[in-house]
Amino acid sequence: MTTQELAEKLVKMCREGKFKEATESLYSEEIVSMEAGAPPGQSRESKGLEAVKAKGEWWAANHEVHAATVEGPLVAGSHFACTFKLDVTFKPENRRFTLEEVAVYKVVDGKVVYEEFFYNMGA
Amino acid sequence: MTTQELAEKLVKMCREGKFKEATESLYSEEIVSMEAGAPPGQSRESKGLEAVKAKGEWWAANHEVHAATVEGPLVAGSHFACTFKLDVTFKPENRRFTLEEVAVYKVVDGKVVYEEFFYNMGA
Repeated sequence: MTTQELAEKLVKMCREGKFKEATESLYSEEIVSMEAGAPPGQSRESKGLEAVKAKGEWWAANHEVHAATVEGPLVAGSHFACTFKLDVTFKPENRRFTLEEVAVYKVVDGKVVYEEFFYNMGA
Repeated sequence: MTTQELAEKLVKMCREGKFKEATESLYSEEIVSMEAGAPPGQSRESKGLEAVKAKGEWWAANHEVHAATVEGPLVAGSHFACTFKLDVTFKPENRRFTLEEVAVYKVVDGKVVYEEFFYNMGA
């Protein structure tokens, strides 16, 4: 699978809300996932498929998604970028907000081995 | 200037080969520029407008650009991404190669304050 094919598949699955399926089918066991920031004492970085799946499960359990837009991908060599615009409610605080972020992915041997998200903290 | 406006202006200037003018007109004095890697003992990070301009001048002096494609931008909040595909010759070694990279930018108060480039080392 080329970077372009994987990028189009990942974007399509995210547009359909299939975040968990995308992680399970397209990510490497050695995935490293980097957030823009982390709470005090916690790491921006999650390492390994189990940790990244756990982060996704926490996110899905704690947010209600009202609307989502995914744009891209833009592909260059082994990397690609897309954007996410999510209208969500953080359920523990019943707080609705818009999350806008750029995501960058690196692909090796047809699997995502690195992802990084760029957004403003506190957004 | 919104992030969208700045992003479109930067991409347009890069398409016209006006990299130096883009840096001088669109970048903050406090710009931080991050490469995917650096030679041993050197930093991936350049801090401040003078350092970033010097990096750009070194690059321009040492590469001949045969063709360049810039795609994007994709904009999300204060960030945007684009891709560069450059057919270049590294003049000191007379070595021609293709550089494909994803670039991510962060905008504050109408200026670029952070840029990061994603590509494979040795490409």
